[in-house]
Amino acid sequence: VSSRPTIGIFDSGFGGLTVMRSLLALVPDANYVYLGDTARLPYGSKSRETIARYAVDSLRFLESQGAELFVVACNTASALALDALEAEAKIPVIGVIEPGASAARAARNEAMQEAAATDLTSDGVLVLATEATVQSHAYARACAAHGLRAFEKACPLLVPLVEEGWIDHPVTEEVARIYLAEALVQAGAQNIIPHTILLGCTHYPLLQDLFECVLLKHFADHDPMSILDSAEATAQRVKQLVAERFSSTSTTSTTEPTQKFFATDSVEKFQRLGSRFLGCPIAYVQHVDLGG
Amino acid sequence: VSSRPTIGIFDSGFGGLTVMRSLLALVPDANYVYLGDTARLPYGSKSRETIARYAVDSLRFLESQGAELFVVACNTASALALDALEAEAKIPVIGVIEPGASAARAARNEAMQEAAATDLTSDGVLVLATEATVQSHAYARACAAHGLRAFEKACPLLVPLVEEGWIDHPVTEEVARIYLAEALVQAGAQNIIPHTILLGCTHYPLLQDLFECVLLKHFADHDPMSILDSAEATAQRVKQLVAERFSSTSTTSTTEPTQKFFATDSVEKFQRLGSRFLGCPIAYVQHVDLGG
Repeated sequence: VSSRPTIGIFDSGFGGLTVMRSLLALVPDANYVYLGDTARLPYGSKSRETIARYAVDSLRFLESQGAELFVVACNTASALALDALEAEAKIPVIGVIEPGASAARAARNEAMQEAAATDLTSDGVLVLATEATVQSHAYARACAAHGLRAFEKACPLLVPLVEEGWIDHPVTEEVARIYLAEALVQAGAQNIIPHTILLGCTHYPLLQDLFECVLLKHFADHDPMSILDSAEATAQRVKQLVAERFSSTSTTSTTEPTQKFFATDSVEKFQRLGSRFLGCPIAYVQHVDLGG
Repeated sequence: VSSRPTIGIFDSGFGGLTVMRSLLALVPDANYVYLGDTARLPYGSKSRETIARYAVDSLRFLESQGAELFVVACNTASALALDALEAEAKIPVIGVIEPGASAARAARNEAMQEAAATDLTSDGVLVLATEATVQSHAYARACAAHGLRAFEKACPLLVPLVEEGWIDHPVTEEVARIYLAEALVQAGAQNIIPHTILLGCTHYPLLQDLFECVLLKHFADHDPMSILDSAEATAQRVKQLVAERFSSTSTTSTTEPTQKFFATDSVEKFQRLGSRFLGCPIAYVQHVDLGG
């Protein structure tokens, strides 16, 4: 067993870099290989078969780059291709959806302990995600398996706002307020009272502070809601797996851990926008062609 | 010569339906075949070769459906694939960019006549478009050929806002105001004082009223700016071509003109969003597979 595991991270774009950002804080001494299949995005509008084929291509590529763990840092691929990936992979595969649902369950348990278990109806989770993820209902299923009732709200403007760099912009605040207000009314109509907001898109962790601010300013009347993101939850899961499988007696490797970035389309855009998602500059992105 | 021409319209999505909307008003007695290559959008991030190949696939398909004119109702394909299409086509090919630039020139000539030709510096055009169209600089080149200096401004949030249906929404008004204010400062730094705003994206005609309102409310101090859109300009060009090539002595056809819609991906989304762009309901969309 090597003392320094190589973690492969895959997304259709650079959004998955928020998962890598969380991972770098939790598992700093691993090697990382990141693949953004930017030439074939968006996955959201494609069929399950096509997405599974693309995801397996990416798995093969990252395996060839030495990955010993495969993190599917893409909600659409996690929703639609996890079975196919697990069937094909020689290495452990971790998606973003189950860890997100599991973290929502843990948050609920904590909250109920604090509230002395008086509020037994607090099984509501509000999942904010892209339209494709919402339509898959993968979060609702994963939450149901944890005894939680999820209301899934599509927020199609948030990804373009993040990509425009309007992270703490008044327009984004207003859009977030509108989506939250709509979601709480729609969830309420199904008797779902959310106590947790789960950010179910790899772009949304960049809006965590903004959502906290919107809750304080506009939803102070509502029962308190905690904000979780799948990126952080997934990184926690990976950390656990690394500890189980790659527990090393000695981590005093003489070489520095490495980070490699690959993209199937424009490396320029990946580098420019990706640095914002990773939270630190990306020095070099290599182009790779995985076919059509 | 048939008395009822069949006009083929092609776009990567349903945005080109705004061109068809303008065409239906100007050439109501034609047959229409529309193809949205929705499975392979967005074209914006793809290479010139790939876009040309996709566009030629679409040309072939619409020719097989009886098209006698091929309208490239897609700014990216017009910018990057018009030469390839003209080389391959057996029928006339019309893009959206040259008609837009030509309309801007006509608007300037009119304005100068009204102003008694005193303001000879009024050669500025502000082109609002997607990032891909801006990066191609196709509008700047087309405008330069008409003696106009264009400043091209990428407005990446406008397409998602239109697709979200926020056509006359305060958030969209604020986004439009911000983009316009930025653009006028940036254009001014290049000594370009726009007298015309050219909406260089097929989604933007739905925002024409909103832009008029933003100009009135927030840019009353600026020299008056007229708003043109490439969709309308292209429809005018097609009308002219139809009159030249398909002039019929008798248009008393006994059959009703037909409209057919094809999409390469989800027909449901095409139908739902497309009706908004066409301005009237789309009864039926047929799925077609053009390959990968």
